[in-house]
Amino acid sequence: MSATPVSFCIEARRGNARSASLTVRGRTTKTPAFMPVGTQGTVKGIPGHQLHEMGYRAALANTYHLHLRPGEETVARLGGVHRMMDFPGIILTDSGGFQVFSLSERNVVDDEGITFQSHLDGNRIRLTPHRAMEIQHALDSDIAMVLDECPPADASAKVLEEAVRRSIDWAGRCWEHHRSLSHDRAVFAISQGGKDPVLRRQMIDELTTVSFDGFALGGISVGEDRQVIRDEILAFTQWLPEDRPRYLMGVGSPRELFLAVRQGVDLFDCVMPTRNARNGHLYTREGILKMRNAIHAEDPRPVEADCPCTLCVRYSRGTLRHLLHAREMLGPMLATEHNLTFLLRLIQDLRRWVERGDAAVDFDWLDRHYP
Amino acid sequence: MSATPVSFCIEARRGNARSASLTVRGRTTKTPAFMPVGTQGTVKGIPGHQLHEMGYRAALANTYHLHLRPGEETVARLGGVHRMMDFPGIILTDSGGFQVFSLSERNVVDDEGITFQSHLDGNRIRLTPHRAMEIQHALDSDIAMVLDECPPADASAKVLEEAVRRSIDWAGRCWEHHRSLSHDRAVFAISQGGKDPVLRRQMIDELTTVSFDGFALGGISVGEDRQVIRDEILAFTQWLPEDRPRYLMGVGSPRELFLAVRQGVDLFDCVMPTRNARNGHLYTREGILKMRNAIHAEDPRPVEADCPCTLCVRYSRGTLRHLLHAREMLGPMLATEHNLTFLLRLIQDLRRWVERGDAAVDFDWLDRHYP
Repeated sequence: MSATPVSFCIEARRGNARSASLTVRGRTTKTPAFMPVGTQGTVKGIPGHQLHEMGYRAALANTYHLHLRPGEETVARLGGVHRMMDFPGIILTDSGGFQVFSLSERNVVDDEGITFQSHLDGNRIRLTPHRAMEIQHALDSDIAMVLDECPPADASAKVLEEAVRRSIDWAGRCWEHHRSLSHDRAVFAISQGGKDPVLRRQMIDELTTVSFDGFALGGISVGEDRQVIRDEILAFTQWLPEDRPRYLMGVGSPRELFLAVRQGVDLFDCVMPTRNARNGHLYTREGILKMRNAIHAEDPRPVEADCPCTLCVRYSRGTLRHLLHAREMLGPMLATEHNLTFLLRLIQDLRRWVERGDAAVDFDWLDRHYP
Repeated sequence: MSATPVSFCIEARRGNARSASLTVRGRTTKTPAFMPVGTQGTVKGIPGHQLHEMGYRAALANTYHLHLRPGEETVARLGGVHRMMDFPGIILTDSGGFQVFSLSERNVVDDEGITFQSHLDGNRIRLTPHRAMEIQHALDSDIAMVLDECPPADASAKVLEEAVRRSIDWAGRCWEHHRSLSHDRAVFAISQGGKDPVLRRQMIDELTTVSFDGFALGGISVGEDRQVIRDEILAFTQWLPEDRPRYLMGVGSPRELFLAVRQGVDLFDCVMPTRNARNGHLYTREGILKMRNAIHAEDPRPVEADCPCTLCVRYSRGTLRHLLHAREMLGPMLATEHNLTFLLRLIQDLRRWVERGDAAVDFDWLDRHYP
């Protein structure tokens, strides 16, 4: 028997929802948790230590991007992804698969892996379950994701079935190779299967025969409309093992966070909150404020009166609008901190709701402003 | 007799150099001081409160840019330039003249002012001594600059003479109108005259018949080579009144700061340290490091071991290089803080040198690395 460097302790439950502590290699995050996305080794516009000071204890880094630039060997020589991002919390890396399918050109899938062209320089690159684990190992992330095939949302049943078959096989290979590389890092499996409940269920049943440290729902927020996402969350989350973290990939709107937490999801990541911020779309309890609009030009009020972020404490709506129009990087910097502060407070409210019940938090504003 | 809301107290001297305290409207900066440039209402990539926490007590905002966008009325309605920049130190605004001559198209000068086209939308705009003071008054800066004509470095003697004649006249009109608008803000005159010592002297003699709160040397760092700048500094600074702050406009390289402080200059501004930072040129005691170069790719060392800035405390050279190549805004953010930290420490060393003598600081590194 070896020690357990990965632990997941459920501390409270309400309906299907739960709050828990996830620890990997001595780093702990409370869940539910939203993980900001550091695509190229940094969350855009926010230093890692500031994320940590804000209260974030988990973040994501993209294997595809870091593999292409600066390369995992360079990251390793610079001390690993925690040093590079200057983030002391849990860092989860994706496998790179999703970006290969969405960003790279001329990717070709076979049973052994994927061959693709870098979107940066056109170099042909080969990604296999083996390589995906080795790259993540070199990056030195705490949680690695298995390589999976990510078919488009409108894929035919045949393509979907083929992708599921391959992804199950790859998950097993990833698990084996991960265990040969590391005994203290976590590896999560990913369920694909699109909207087909039979395929989803079948894949989850296969994946759960292996003792992965956590399970993700992939392919949920790829081009589908909202209602479909809700139904899928309702249907699929329950099939994931109760005692492992459940991670809904690519989901992060306030409404979807709320719905998914209620269904028992523990972890989230999404680029939208930070991308929205850079475009001047700011989350508030009164809905999204589009800060580039003329109506804000001379408004001396803060974006949100009770928000503790730098933007809301120190700057007016009018100044933020000016910074965005003048293309000053301070605008996206402040807006990003705000949206991440908003999501952190939402997640903290959701945790309190799980721990203390409905009376603790009033979520009517979510129904009214994020329908 | 009215109270003196503007004070300049010389506290130590060494040769022609001096250290002093400049106070305007209750805000104080020690001099010599370098003022970071907040072109559009922010120093690029650094929030105002962070500049203040670093130790900066004076900064510059550009009247031309803020007049065009968002407009001085909007700045006023948002609480003035201090609130907008979130900077509690002294804010100096230029008159807009320099930008009109360098940025706008089809500018036409007459004895009453300048007519120019906005570089943003092509609108025709009229700037007069009157308007220049009114705009700066609306922005609510602490120190206003008079409007002057800024001829190019290679202007003929006739053009230069004409510009000096006009600028003397405009300075008088600015002074009169400034005094009618405000009794607690400072206004500085600007000496032009290019490289011609007779013209310079003549203009300074004219300007000093009016009790401006400070005097600037303009047109010193416009396209001239280094040696010429040195000679001009040597020749011209001495003619400015001893008991008023002396401001060398547009100068900010480590070497020039050192030379100018030795000649008795008190205030500086320059976009180069922050622009250099964004381009990956970092100031160090060993000279300028070009951080985009491949040599830094896997270097785990900080840019400067003893520097207290976020970059040097938290990030490696290799990570900075990656951030710059990946066009992540965190790169320019960190590099800007570093270069401004470097200049602040240099200025603090220069102040100590004035106060305590040569033994206090070793400036050999400047001679070796910034020749």
